[in-house]
This record gives sequence, C-alpha cells and structure tokens, in this order.
Amino acid sequence: MKNLEAVAGNGLLDRRAFLRGGAALAAAMTGYTLAGPASAEPLADDPWSRAPGTNVPAYGVPSRFEKSVVHPNGEPRTQHGRTPHHLLQGTYTPNGLHFVISHAGDADIDPEKHRLVIHGLVKRPLLFTLDALARYPMVSRMTFVECGGNSAPLFSREPIQASVQALHGLASCAEWTGVALSTLLEETGVDPKAKWLVAEGADAPALSRSVPLAKALDDAMIALYQNGERLMPGNGYPMRLLLPGWEGNMNVKWLRRLKLVEAPAMSYYESRTYAPILPNGKAYQFYFLQEVKSFITHPSPGLMLKAPGFYEISGIAYSGNGRISKVMVSADGGQSWAQAALHEPVLSKAFTRFRVPWNWNGGPAVLQSRAWDEAGNVQPTRAQIIAVRGQAAKVPRVTAFPSQHYNGVTSWAISSAGAVSHVYA
Amino acid sequence: MKNLEAVAGNGLLDRRAFLRGGAALAAAMTGYTLAGPASAEPLADDPWSRAPGTNVPAYGVPSRFEKSVVHPNGEPRTQHGRTPHHLLQGTYTPNGLHFVISHAGDADIDPEKHRLVIHGLVKRPLLFTLDALARYPMVSRMTFVECGGNSAPLFSREPIQASVQALHGLASCAEWTGVALSTLLEETGVDPKAKWLVAEGADAPALSRSVPLAKALDDAMIALYQNGERLMPGNGYPMRLLLPGWEGNMNVKWLRRLKLVEAPAMSYYESRTYAPILPNGKAYQFYFLQEVKSFITHPSPGLMLKAPGFYEISGIAYSGNGRISKVMVSADGGQSWAQAALHEPVLSKAFTRFRVPWNWNGGPAVLQSRAWDEAGNVQPTRAQIIAVRGQAAKVPRVTAFPSQHYNGVTSWAISSAGAVSHVYA
Repeated sequence: MKNLEAVAGNGLLDRRAFLRGGAALAAAMTGYTLAGPASAEPLADDPWSRAPGTNVPAYGVPSRFEKSVVHPNGEPRTQHGRTPHHLLQGTYTPNGLHFVISHAGDADIDPEKHRLVIHGLVKRPLLFTLDALARYPMVSRMTFVECGGNSAPLFSREPIQASVQALHGLASCAEWTGVALSTLLEETGVDPKAKWLVAEGADAPALSRSVPLAKALDDAMIALYQNGERLMPGNGYPMRLLLPGWEGNMNVKWLRRLKLVEAPAMSYYESRTYAPILPNGKAYQFYFLQEVKSFITHPSPGLMLKAPGFYEISGIAYSGNGRISKVMVSADGGQSWAQAALHEPVLSKAFTRFRVPWNWNGGPAVLQSRAWDEAGNVQPTRAQIIAVRGQAAKVPRVTAFPSQHYNGVTSWAISSAGAVSHVYA
Repeated sequence: MKNLEAVAGNGLLDRRAFLRGGAALAAAMTGYTLAGPASAEPLADDPWSRAPGTNVPAYGVPSRFEKSVVHPNGEPRTQHGRTPHHLLQGTYTPNGLHFVISHAGDADIDPEKHRLVIHGLVKRPLLFTLDALARYPMVSRMTFVECGGNSAPLFSREPIQASVQALHGLASCAEWTGVALSTLLEETGVDPKAKWLVAEGADAPALSRSVPLAKALDDAMIALYQNGERLMPGNGYPMRLLLPGWEGNMNVKWLRRLKLVEAPAMSYYESRTYAPILPNGKAYQFYFLQEVKSFITHPSPGLMLKAPGFYEISGIAYSGNGRISKVMVSADGGQSWAQAALHEPVLSKAFTRFRVPWNWNGGPAVLQSRAWDEAGNVQPTRAQIIAVRGQAAKVPRVTAFPSQHYNGVTSWAISSAGAVSHVYA
C-alpha cells in the first residue's frame, strides 16, 4: 500500500497519498460493505423520495437541518458574529456566515441616499452616488478580512475550552468586487502634502480610521459586492473600504468619507480600542498588518473522532503579506512535522485550505499547524508570541490585557476517546 | 490622455486603459464635483448615522433594499430559479442566487438518514453515510454548472425581450468541496466490464442520468459543500454529483445511488427531455458538454445608460473544455472588436469575468462578446449555430423545438436614449 506509511509521528501520511492512483484505499477508508446478495436493492425509499419536495425559494437559504450553522451574536452594544470554521469547508466564507462586528448594530442604509465623498487634500473634491461608482472600471479579488482581536483568547494563561468558531471566528474570506481606490484618487488628484486619509463610516459611531496614502494607492478598493452579490448589511452595505491583509476595522464599513490629511487623526478606534499594549506598559501605536497564521478546523473541538483509522486534517492559512508558501502539520505536539497539501490556486492575502491525511491509531495526539508566507515570515509558536506580547493578567485588567493580533500556533489534543480539546503545547 | 483613444469602433477602449497610472480619468469619469468652499462639510447625517442599527442576525441575509435581487420561481411541477447576472458582479454566484431547476420541488432530506450506495459492476459494493464521507480526503474546485436548456430563448425566430437573468440565468458558478469520485471508486474497485454509471437522486422523480466511467474517474466529485457551507437544498443537499463542464442535470442532486453498468440506462432525462432535436428530425443521443460561451451582463436589458460617457462593459465567459483564453467585445455589431481584460486567475471550467472600458458617444450601438477556450474552440455566431441546429418553429411544437445547448453570440442594442434591448445582429 504505497504512500500509506507515516511521514511524521503519530500517523501523519504523505500529502500525496490520495492523489489519483496513489493508494489502495480499502484498508484505510470508512465506507460500509453492503451485506446480502448483489442483486438485492440496497436503498429503501425515504419520505422525500415518495412525494414532491418544497417550493424553490426566491432567495435560497440552508436546509432546516443546518440550523446550528450560524454565527451567534452578542450583546447589542458590540455584536460579534463569528464564522463557524469547524462546520465549513473550502476557502470561501458564504455571505450568511462572514464574521461581523458591529459597534452599534448594522447600519440600515438606503443605497439611493448614500453618498461617498473624497475631500481634504485633493485637487478636486468629489462626491459619488452608488450609480456613479457603478460606471467605473471594476476589480475583483478574493481576500480575507480579520479582526485585530481575533484569537485573543489564546493570550489567556490557561487554554480556553471553546470551538474554533469562538477562538478564531473573527476572520473570513470572500471575493470582493468594486472600484480600485487608486482609480478614484486619480480623478480627485492628490495634494502632495497628503500622507494619510481618514476613512469614516455612516454608522452611528461614525467609526473612523487613518490609512497611509501608500496603502490607498496600492491595493485598496471601494468594495460594492461580496461573493457576487451586494455587500451584506453587516459587512458594510452598500460600500466598504477594503484594505487587503490589514486589520479588520480599518476596512471601514458603511463608508461615507475619505478625507486626505497630513497626519493620522488618532481616532478612538486607532488610539484606544485597537492599540495593543505590551508587557512593559507601552503600546503599539499602529499595528495594521494581519500576520501569517494558520489553524486546524478539522478535527477541532466539538468534532469527535468516532473510531481509529483514517481522517483528513485540514485547516486555513493566510497572511497579510501575500501568498502562503508552506504549511506544516504535526500530530505529536511539534516533535515531527509533515507538509500539508495546499488547495490551488494559492492567492495572495486569501484563505488557503491545507490538507494532510492522517491515520489515527486511537492513542493520544496533539495536532498543530504552522504556516509560512512568500515573504519568508513564519507563524510563531505560542511561546514565542507570548514572550514578546505577554499574556493576560491573572486578574484581567483592560489596560494590561494583550488582546490583539495573536497569530501563534494553536494546539488541539485528541484523547483516546476521540474528544478534541484546546491545549497549550 | 494616454490610452483613452478607441481601439475598436463605437468607442471601445484598450483593456489596459485603467491600469494604475494608465490614464488621466477626469474627463472620462462620473464623480460629482463638490460645490461650495473647501472647508464646508459635504455630508449631512442620514437617519442611520444618528441611531444604533439593527441586530447582527445569526445568519446574514441581504439588505431589505435588495429585495428585487432574487430568482423568481415557476410553476410547482418544474421550478426554475434563474441567476440575476445583471445584478451581480465578480465570478462567484452567491448561494442564495445559484440557479435551481427542481422537477418536483426541493427534496427535504434529513442528512442523518441519507445514504449513498455505489454498487453494480464493482468488486465491493459500499454504502456511505454523510459522517463516513466526511472522513475521506476532500477536494475543492470552482466550477460552473449550466442547464442544457440555458439560453434556449435565443433559438426563437424573433429576439425575446427579457433580462439576462431570463435568457442566460440557468448557469451559475461556485466553489464546490467534496470527495473525488475516483477516490470512492478506488475503494469499491471497478469490474472491467463497467463502462458507465447510472446516477440517481433521492428526489421524488428519482432523476437519473448515465455517465461514462471515464468522466467519473476524471474530475467528478461527490459535492458536500457549496461556497464553504453545506449545499443549498435546491442544489442537492446533502450531496450531489458534480461533473465539471457537463450538462446541468447530469450533476445529479440529492444523490443516493451510483450503479456501475455496461451500457447507458436510456433514462427519461437522457433519452427524452435532454436529447436535442435537429432540423432533419434526428436527435443528438447525448450532448454532455457545455461548450464555450459568453454574454455581456453590464450593460444588459433593464440597466439604462443614463448619459453618454464612460461605462465598463463586463460579462461572463466559460467553457466545459477548460480555461477561457480570450474574449473579444464589439460595440458595432461585430464589425470591429477589442480584446477584453480577464479577471485573474482564469480557472478551468469556471466563470471568467471579462471587462472592457467603453466611451459611449450617445449614439446607437450593438454590443456583443465572443469567447475562445484553451482547447481552441470559438463561440459561434448566432447564424452559425442556427445553421446547424435550426431555430424554433413558427408555431412551437415540442418535438421540433431546438431548445438545448445554445452557445452562440448574444447581441444587445443600445438606443440613443440609453435603453438596452435584445437584437439579432
């Protein structure tokens, strides 16, 4: 049975083991052999095979049997809808399950009345209706958006027992389509004194963030569509700023203003809420980039392994610096590693699904993943990131809680009963 | 103004005109210059900026202002939900708007009770639960699915005045994730006598189609996820057969059986409903492939051009043979052509968005697109396909209506008032 030998400890198999023709699967796999004579009819007719089904809805929604695949929301003031990565597959986040943080609910905007203005240090201040923007050249790109506070529970002193949705659900990936911001800035013209722009939303808190002009002229977009349809209300309908690879809330939703200025505005959301505090009491003034990261979604807490044998370990990797170049997976807590297969095409600043086959022997195991990006960055271990950033105080105090930009390794322990738990390893 | 000269008749611009730094846009574009002194505040606060918004829902749905972006359904017997391409952008069809044809409604299947059986001419007949399939190595791929009857209105003798949704809405594109059928067939083993398999759905009509074994072993998939989440009920929840590039209904939804056989079953849906009839009264016995095709979605009927000036012409191209290699666009009814920009990466058997900038002079114009694929196939003109397949009888008779596999050119006429209509040109 070619390729079914382990390439790393605790049963990790070569990522090419199941390429077509690569293996005799019979012993490894999980289908049930049919009993009875070959001529017997193996299927009974269930109720849905005996009568017409339901009407085709005007807008499709998931099956009633998928009611648990949702993102729970939080208290009204700051609502967090987290993506249930353990229940999803592939690389795209469906629009119904894209993560949402709303600091004052989802703005309910009439697109006919909404306006975007670009002003300040420009040669020709301009105002855009949605109709006007629709006439510009469009660009599409798949990219992730991640909250700077995603994975913050991993700064805790003890591993918090929660699903990958609760731990890492503030990151999602979609194909966004809209107008390149550079196109609009070419039309307004830019005063040479301008070095930053302040982006402001039309939501009640008028959430605003300062963005270096260089990023605005690089790959920033005024996004109008998300996975083909108009933006979801929670993702900024009818338009948001998209800054591929940068901290989520800088991708200002319900965007209504871009004001070109000489220096950052030091707004509430950049100088207070999203300024990570270090062990020495100082803070990063700005921390824009979402750095290289990965986590395993299958298996993960809440998904039981029912019996020893073959499983696929899979998860998500991404980097604000560009493409993922490599993901390594361990089943023995980091003692040995196997290289994972990456779903092609690997796109810059987008989710990349990694997969590695695993033959679980039924004993204890600790699963980890670690990602590299094309710029040469490597995802740190948890020990490495804690050494730099600190961890939560024993008695949490807001001012001393390093709650932002965790991109270290996540570890899942498998018990011999097949339960998955969160551990620090 | 570099690159803003027309490269083809009636104002088509070079596809590179709006690459970063490529053009001075001021004269071509559509933003409104702000009046008043530079210090004046250009934005008033709308109601949504003055009070908290709505709660974040557990499963996101489009804004209430997007109520018209739906796929209308038809009569209960055969429901058609068509994708509203003129209201979408990018390359993915969101799950709520993926086209659906249900010959007896959407089967309402309990996934815990659903079974897939692979039997017939195999060495080891196997039965799979959804849990068992979840343990197999997964594959993801973006691919379109298109009904063989998509675009059938273009066989009419006179151009039917309808939206691109009504004319071409029975094609959609998604990222599908599931188990390669070749993986499962490797486990069952294949009797050398087997040349076909019969795929059967668990819906009330038990829709079944015969598939050559070679396709099953090539790129067929048992799809479990659609754009990251479980399949929509109308797209076969909890599983469907996916045959990239082949006629829609062969991608059997609510899949429950794959029976390996020596010869095709000549089922109702392959010998009667989906067997295109030719002018000489003969019929294609099988017509599996969805051939190279394109159509313009923006502008298209229902989308008015409000004033002369710059517009982006964009649309969708795809081929069941592989990648799109080139799309040409005409604004003068095919007299001259400009090459469109293709959204990268161009993926095999997937929607490819094409875009070309256009400076509309306010006069009459006829827009067309024509696609080529990497296998060297070219999309036929309407005259070419009608010459081979015929067109609808003056008095439609079911037996003489060539209603399948139209992949010819579509033409939109622009009036000097900016209205878009369907013409044969």
